[in-house]
Amino acid sequence: MDSFVFQNATKIIFGRDSEAKVGAETALHAKKVLLHSGMGSAKRSGLLDRVIASLRAAGVEFVELAGVQPNPRLSKVHDGIRICREQKIDFILAVGGGSVIDSAKAIAAGVPYEGDVWDFYCGKAHPKSALKVACVLTIPAAGSESSGSTVITKEEGQLKHGLTCDDYLRPVFSIMNPALTATLSVKDTAIGAADIMSHVMERYFTNSTAVDYSDRLCEATMRSVAYNLPRVLAAPQDYDARAELMWTGTNAHSDLIGMGRGGDWASHEIEHELSALYDIAHGTGLAIVFPAWMKHVYRHDIQRFARWANRVWDVEADFGNPEAVALEGIRRFEAFYTRNGLPVRLSEAGIGADRLDEIAARLSQNGQRSVGNFVKLDQAAIRAILELAR
Amino acid sequence: MDSFVFQNATKIIFGRDSEAKVGAETALHAKKVLLHSGMGSAKRSGLLDRVIASLRAAGVEFVELAGVQPNPRLSKVHDGIRICREQKIDFILAVGGGSVIDSAKAIAAGVPYEGDVWDFYCGKAHPKSALKVACVLTIPAAGSESSGSTVITKEEGQLKHGLTCDDYLRPVFSIMNPALTATLSVKDTAIGAADIMSHVMERYFTNSTAVDYSDRLCEATMRSVAYNLPRVLAAPQDYDARAELMWTGTNAHSDLIGMGRGGDWASHEIEHELSALYDIAHGTGLAIVFPAWMKHVYRHDIQRFARWANRVWDVEADFGNPEAVALEGIRRFEAFYTRNGLPVRLSEAGIGADRLDEIAARLSQNGQRSVGNFVKLDQAAIRAILELAR
Repeated sequence: MDSFVFQNATKIIFGRDSEAKVGAETALHAKKVLLHSGMGSAKRSGLLDRVIASLRAAGVEFVELAGVQPNPRLSKVHDGIRICREQKIDFILAVGGGSVIDSAKAIAAGVPYEGDVWDFYCGKAHPKSALKVACVLTIPAAGSESSGSTVITKEEGQLKHGLTCDDYLRPVFSIMNPALTATLSVKDTAIGAADIMSHVMERYFTNSTAVDYSDRLCEATMRSVAYNLPRVLAAPQDYDARAELMWTGTNAHSDLIGMGRGGDWASHEIEHELSALYDIAHGTGLAIVFPAWMKHVYRHDIQRFARWANRVWDVEADFGNPEAVALEGIRRFEAFYTRNGLPVRLSEAGIGADRLDEIAARLSQNGQRSVGNFVKLDQAAIRAILELAR
Repeated sequence: MDSFVFQNATKIIFGRDSEAKVGAETALHAKKVLLHSGMGSAKRSGLLDRVIASLRAAGVEFVELAGVQPNPRLSKVHDGIRICREQKIDFILAVGGGSVIDSAKAIAAGVPYEGDVWDFYCGKAHPKSALKVACVLTIPAAGSESSGSTVITKEEGQLKHGLTCDDYLRPVFSIMNPALTATLSVKDTAIGAADIMSHVMERYFTNSTAVDYSDRLCEATMRSVAYNLPRVLAAPQDYDARAELMWTGTNAHSDLIGMGRGGDWASHEIEHELSALYDIAHGTGLAIVFPAWMKHVYRHDIQRFARWANRVWDVEADFGNPEAVALEGIRRFEAFYTRNGLPVRLSEAGIGADRLDEIAARLSQNGQRSVGNFVKLDQAAIRAILELAR
C-alpha cells in the first residue's frame, strides 16, 4: 500500500427535504453569499425558491449568478470573481450539479488571487487560499460535492482543464436530497452513472501493489452502481435507488476509496479533449473512452482486469485463461452501458473521425507528453484508443 | 436509506515512518501538549522517544502522562484533567492504542467541564466543547483514531460506559504507521481484528431498509479483515497485510460505511459488562459475545444473515433454505475466530457461569431497559445469549 494523507471535512447532509437546512447551515459560515446556479432547471423545479426562502429565514443575504452551462465556462467564472470582489462576498453556495459546483470552486479560488484564475488550470500556479464553497446537489455524477477538484473550459482555444486542491476547494457542506434527482431524465441519469463509474475505475486500475482493501471498496462501489442504475431507469421515482446512486457518486470521488494507491486518469484527459471540442456531456465522453481504453491497455495487467471482471461483472474465475476472463469483463461492462442507453462509440455521439489525429496531437502536445499512469499513453497510443472508440 | 449527517475531518497520515511528522503536525495546533501513553510498550519500542524528538524539533512543549491501562480508568482521566488545568494545556497527543486515545478523549472533554467528566459517560450531560485530541496509533482495533467515541471504566462499581461526541472528540489528526504494529503479538493482533469485525457487524445488522451500498461497503470491510488477519498471523512482519488490517480498522469505525442505516450495538453493551467485571480485552469479549448474539437473533432477519453468509463467508446461495445459509455463515464466522486463536466461549476466557444472572440484571437494570436495536434484548434475552456463550 502506498503511503498517503487523507482528509475530507465536507459535511454531508443527506435525505429528504434536506435543502430546508441550507439557510441555517450557511449562516454558520457567512452573512452574504454568491448564489450560483445553472441553466434554469433549479428555478423551474422550485428548488431555487426554497433555497432562497431558507437563506432569508436564516438572515443570509445573497447575490444571484445563474447561467452556468454544462462544461462550465471561464467567462462565467470571471463574472463571479468580479461580483464577489465588488460585493465583498466570501462564501459561494452552488445549487446544481457538478458544473455549477466546479464553477463555484473556480470563483472561490480566483477571488483572492491576483492573476487570472486560469493560471490554476493550466498549471502556472496553485491556490494558496480560497473562499468557502458549499452546495445543494441536484445531479449524482461529478462527485464535486466532496472533492477538491474542478474542471473549467476556456472558450478561447476550446481548452478544458482540471484543478485539484483538496486543502481549500472541498465544499464545507453538501446538501443531498435524492428526491431532487427524480426529475433527471433517464439519459442524464445514465450519463451521471457513467461519470461515477469512471471515477472509481480511474482509481481501480493502478500499478500500486498490496491494495486489497481499497480494491474491495472500489468493487463495492462499482457493483452498487451496476445494481442501482437499472433500478433507477426502470422506476425514475424510486427514492431508494436514487439515494444509492447519489451516495455512490459522492464516495466515488471523495478520495477515501482510492487511498494508498495511484490512479490512472488518462480516460479523463482524453474525454476532456472530446467535450472541449464537441461540447458533449462528460459522462457521455467517458462512456465512449473507457471501453476503448481498456481494450488498449488490459494486457498491461491481465490479473487486475480478470479480478475486476470476476468481482464486479460476475465473470466466472477461469484461472486457466485469465485473458478470456478480462475480455469478458470488458464486454459485459460495455454491454452494461449500451443496455442503459449510453453511447460507447464516438459515432453514436455524432462525432466523426476527422479530428482524431488533432485530438491525439493536442493531448500529447505533439508527442511532448504522455497521459495516464497505469499505462503511459503517447500520441500513437491515444490515437489507437480513439480508433477503438470510433 | 435513512437520512443522515456525516462529517469526519480527521486527517489520516498513513505510511512508513509517518510518526516523524508528529511534531510538525502538532505544531499547527498547539505549543504545549499532554503526551499521553500506556503501560510502557511505546517507551520500550523507542516510539515514544521518536515522538518526543519530533515534538522537540518542532518546538512543542509537552507534559507526560503515561500508564493508561487496557480498559482505561477514570482515575487516570482525572489525573489528566488536573494536569491540563494546572499547566494550561489545550491539546492532548495520545501515543498508543484505543485505550490511550479513549483516555485522551475523556480528558479532552473533562477539562472545560465544571462537573465530573463521568457525567458524560453515564448520560447526565453531553460535552459542549473539548480540547483537541490527536494520536499516533499503535494497535489496529478500536477505530478510536477517527471516531468520536470513547469508553472509560469507573473503578468504583466496576462500571464501563461509552460516550460518542462526533462534534468535538474526533482526533484532529491520526498518524498511522503499519510497521509500528508488527511487534503486536499474534494474540493481540487477533483480538484487535475481532474488535474491527465487530464495529462493522454492529452496523451491518440493521432494521433500516434500502441500504445496498452501505451493505456492500460493510461486506468489503469484513472480507478484507477475513482475508488479511490470517496473512498477518502467518507472517507478523508482513507490512502490506499489517497495513490492510490497520486501514480497515479505521474505516470500520469512522462512520462512513454505516451512513444511512441504524446499528445494533447490543454485543458491545454486553461485552462492556464482561470487561468491566473480568478486565478481559474488549476484542476478546466481542469474539465471545457476537456468535452467541447471532444464534439468538438471526431469525429476526434470516435474509440479512443469509446475505452476510453468502457475501462475506462464501456460503452458497441456497434460496430454498435461507436459514441453512444463515446458520452456515455463523458457523464459518465462529470457525474463523477459532482458527485465528480467538476464544468464542466464556469458558475459553476463564469466565465461569456464576455471575451471568448478575450481568443480565446489571445490563437491563433489573429489567428496566433493553439493549440493542436490531433486536431489543430484555433481561431474559441477555441471559439467553450469555448462556449460548458459556
